Amino acid sequence: MMNPGEPMLGSWDSEGGAGESLAMLTKDIAAALGASLVGDGAKDIARIVHPDDAEHPSDLAVAIISDTAAALTRTRAEAAIVSAKRLPEPNRFASLIVIEQGRAALAILTALFDGGPARGAGVHQTAVVAPDIELGEGVSIGPFVVIGPGSRIGAGTTILSHASLGENVVVGAGGLIHSGVRIGDRVTIGERVMIHSNAVVGSDGFSFAPELGPRMPYSPGLELKRVHSLGRVIIGDDVEIGANTTIDRATLRSTRIGSGTKIDNQVQIGHNVTIGTNCLICGKVGISGSATIGDRVRIGGGAGIADHIMIGTEAIIGAASGVGSDVPEGQYVFGYPAVAIDRALEQYRYLGRQKLLHRKINEIATRVDELERDKMAR
Amino acid sequence: MMNPGEPMLGSWDSEGGAGESLAMLTKDIAAALGASLVGDGAKDIARIVHPDDAEHPSDLAVAIISDTAAALTRTRAEAAIVSAKRLPEPNRFASLIVIEQGRAALAILTALFDGGPARGAGVHQTAVVAPDIELGEGVSIGPFVVIGPGSRIGAGTTILSHASLGENVVVGAGGLIHSGVRIGDRVTIGERVMIHSNAVVGSDGFSFAPELGPRMPYSPGLELKRVHSLGRVIIGDDVEIGANTTIDRATLRSTRIGSGTKIDNQVQIGHNVTIGTNCLICGKVGISGSATIGDRVRIGGGAGIADHIMIGTEAIIGAASGVGSDVPEGQYVFGYPAVAIDRALEQYRYLGRQKLLHRKINEIATRVDELERDKMAR
Amino acid sequence: MMNPGEPMLGSWDSEGGAGESLAMLTKDIAAALGASLVGDGAKDIARIVHPDDAEHPSDLAVAIISDTAAALTRTRAEAAIVSAKRLPEPNRFASLIVIEQGRAALAILTALFDGGPARGAGVHQTAVVAPDIELGEGVSIGPFVVIGPGSRIGAGTTILSHASLGENVVVGAGGLIHSGVRIGDRVTIGERVMIHSNAVVGSDGFSFAPELGPRMPYSPGLELKRVHSLGRVIIGDDVEIGANTTIDRATLRSTRIGSGTKIDNQVQIGHNVTIGTNCLICGKVGISGSATIGDRVRIGGGAGIADHIMIGTEAIIGAASGVGSDVPEGQYVFGYPAVAIDRALEQYRYLGRQKLLHRKINEIATRVDELERDKMAR
Repeated sequence: MMNPGEPMLGSWDSEGGAGESLAMLTKDIAAALGASLVGDGAKDIARIVHPDDAEHPSDLAVAIISDTAAALTRTRAEAAIVSAKRLPEPNRFASLIVIEQGRAALAILTALFDGGPARGAGVHQTAVVAPDIELGEGVSIGPFVVIGPGSRIGAGTTILSHASLGENVVVGAGGLIHSGVRIGDRVTIGERVMIHSNAVVGSDGFSFAPELGPRMPYSPGLELKRVHSLGRVIIGDDVEIGANTTIDRATLRSTRIGSGTKIDNQVQIGHNVTIGTNCLICGKVGISGSATIGDRVRIGGGAGIADHIMIGTEAIIGAASGVGSDVPEGQYVFGYPAVAIDRALEQYRYLGRQKLLHRKINEIATRVDELERDKMAR
Repeated sequence: MMNPGEPMLGSWDSEGGAGESLAMLTKDIAAALGASLVGDGAKDIARIVHPDDAEHPSDLAVAIISDTAAALTRTRAEAAIVSAKRLPEPNRFASLIVIEQGRAALAILTALFDGGPARGAGVHQTAVVAPDIELGEGVSIGPFVVIGPGSRIGAGTTILSHASLGENVVVGAGGLIHSGVRIGDRVTIGERVMIHSNAVVGSDGFSFAPELGPRMPYSPGLELKRVHSLGRVIIGDDVEIGANTTIDRATLRSTRIGSGTKIDNQVQIGHNVTIGTNCLICGKVGISGSATIGDRVRIGGGAGIADHIMIGTEAIIGAASGVGSDVPEGQYVFGYPAVAIDRALEQYRYLGRQKLLHRKINEIATRVDELERDKMAR
Repeated sequence: MMNPGEPMLGSWDSEGGAGESLAMLTKDIAAALGASLVGDGAKDIARIVHPDDAEHPSDLAVAIISDTAAALTRTRAEAAIVSAKRLPEPNRFASLIVIEQGRAALAILTALFDGGPARGAGVHQTAVVAPDIELGEGVSIGPFVVIGPGSRIGAGTTILSHASLGENVVVGAGGLIHSGVRIGDRVTIGERVMIHSNAVVGSDGFSFAPELGPRMPYSPGLELKRVHSLGRVIIGDDVEIGANTTIDRATLRSTRIGSGTKIDNQVQIGHNVTIGTNCLICGKVGISGSATIGDRVRIGGGAGIADHIMIGTEAIIGAASGVGSDVPEGQYVFGYPAVAIDRALEQYRYLGRQKLLHRKINEIATRVDELERDKMAR
């Protein structure tokens, strides 16, 4: 083993993180879940695990979903959390937490036991921050973070290593900016926003003059001139932005992501786009410039939305669909080009029956031949 | 408020950036645009805004595109720039700039008022640079930048925080390398090139031996052996590379991006690819290894190009298309698999008429049944 | 030229890298390849090049693939490596290496001449590492690297600049972690693993409660609650992970990538996914949460796999396919939605014949009209 030696720059004094003990009593877990408890309520739980991974008396076996039922019969855990629909045999566990709604319970339970990433107290001595920035109470700024002039970070927000914030950036309270995130100039972010590693918020829009429509000629001497992005990005509260996702700044106004909207990894959101509240945007989606997405819209993985498209409230875009025309409120579309789901499925069904169809037509043609021959013979 | 404290490592002495005053007189703006001016030519303009966002006497309302016409009637701006096709009522503005070509004007105008990101003077004291690198006049190297041996940076180029350049990298004059960009060994970049945050230029190609064609068997004992990328990436002048885009190095020779080509966010360009000049490559496009793309080719968002494909000059690839065969010069293709646009649209039209077609065939079959019955009866 | 000045933070003392001389004798190259040698075995080779790029007597012209045959006739190289199938004229080269299997030879040959990226000795003085980390012999930690508490790095592994490793991360021996890579808490990586720039391994999964199936209503008051990722990512030996690729942590257990699997750039792998050994996953593929991929599976560029899908051993997924149902062992599927390749090709063929089909049906209808008229007339 080599000795890592005396680090020249600052030690790593973490608080929180996975190392932190998050032990709770079974009765407190049940209370947090609004669940009923059978057996010992004073059992200490330090970890929640799949039933097959239980090793310690302080492990709580999570058997909420149906395919863990078998594992529950063989687990070494002494405490378990199960669905009311699939109770184990009586007295199998010293402590049993019984819930009604599996997935909602999983959200609460995993939040209780998530120590989050390790964070230092205050501003790490290696960070380079403009002298005029404002930091709320309990802000944690990690190693090698850079923050530009005029920026403000709300109370309790954590900015992990290597992130960079441009000028006049606002990040609300209770946020978590992961390592390597880039936040451009003039970006405003609400409260409790989570941005995952290497995401880029506030990059320049992809916009050039002249605008070349697909059927327009492109003269050889033509030079593409950049339309600069002088606008902003405005992100609401409780938004989540995935790893390596990119969101471009607007030309003059703002690219907007509404509160409660969750965006997965590797999503691309173009300049001037407006996205409503509580949307779910899955991995690898591309939303082209100036598209408008309503509230509570769900977009499946890998789907693409053309520029200037309007997607109505509560519409659903199926995975890998290519949306080239507006989608009305509440409509579920699918396919490439995307059409209403029932029509899309019908089309794929018919496409699968082409061979039969051709055979049928040839058969009819033969019969018509025969009828014509018969007519001639008369 | 916490005090960010005395930064251990270097202050943030920015020049330029959004904080810089970029005020201009209306007559100078008109001159830069080659536009006509009505009214006060000596009005100071500090900001260009959407008509609805005008707040100060120094705001210039930009109403070039048709959907800002209504906003122009209610704006608080005293100066405006409008299209000759949609003039406001006379004397509505103290100063009016009238242009012919909207989008070209927007490119010039946004360039005039873009202060660009904040940049320090010289090499930030936290940067780690090889002793033998060559820096042109006015180069700015940001915090935590790393530059490897043998590299050269041209005059006036800015490299923002956390970027890393490998060995023997050349970046031309007037460039802008955003934060977190990775430039691998032996990459050569022309003049005035802009590379957006977290892009990777010069990563290793994805190439293994043996090459397994899709129908070839894959024996269980087989071990995939890496073909290393000893080649380079060569990027021309005035190229733009989007955030989180990746460009792989060639095996022996060079992956090439021609001058004037603009590449959006999250584009993947494989090893040994050659792209011509003045191409437009939209977000999330994937170009597989050894493909060759001509000059002035336009590729819509999310499209994929298979390996070794040739795309001719001025061809157009529709959004989300999957190109599995060569595309001749000037051809516009669309779909998956991509075919000539007119054929693609025809196919989609026919696909939408399948239900009617099946009904029609059943109807004909019934009539033939009837004719045959009639014949039998005779 | 500006003087980059005295760097405040540590010099760049590289070892290895492209600058390193990797000269070999022709006989030693032939031996490494198991190839036969004609002519001078004691010729010094410093570089392998395309025949057209040969400049020095120490350049070895690589003419393994057929399209370099012409270049071989005009090369200035004095030594060449060729396929036994395409021998040059006798005595054309002072030294000639003759191989049987081109691609396998290219893998060995490029490995011999790849000096790899420059690496410093030991821990760079700007790195911020937890005091309790364990480093194997010959580990190299680059500038501005951050490593969290409880992490272990195996012998000979290189971690390049700006990478960050969370808590309790394990990286095996002989690995190469490129610049800007983010490795989250509790990630375990095997031996000889290569992770390319700005990839993110161990980001949080995209998982919320309640789970909203595509046809399920989404009440306006509904708040999406995050299911936290308390699990891990476990990566086997000899795995390669491309630039800007993202791999999410599991909810309770582990996202797993089997040994020998190669993953290209910009691939997204969701939480709880299991991928077998020796798979080939091309650029821009998306694999949704809880999918299971067998051994030796090949997935073409841009393909998408829906959540919870099972892909059997040695299955092949064609480029840009959308896989929405399980794929049996050894099956080759293609299309959107993906079906068996022969059926997919048949469907596309029929789609191309729709115009003819419609014409044929109209023709039959006309003939039936005629027959009916004739019947009426009788």
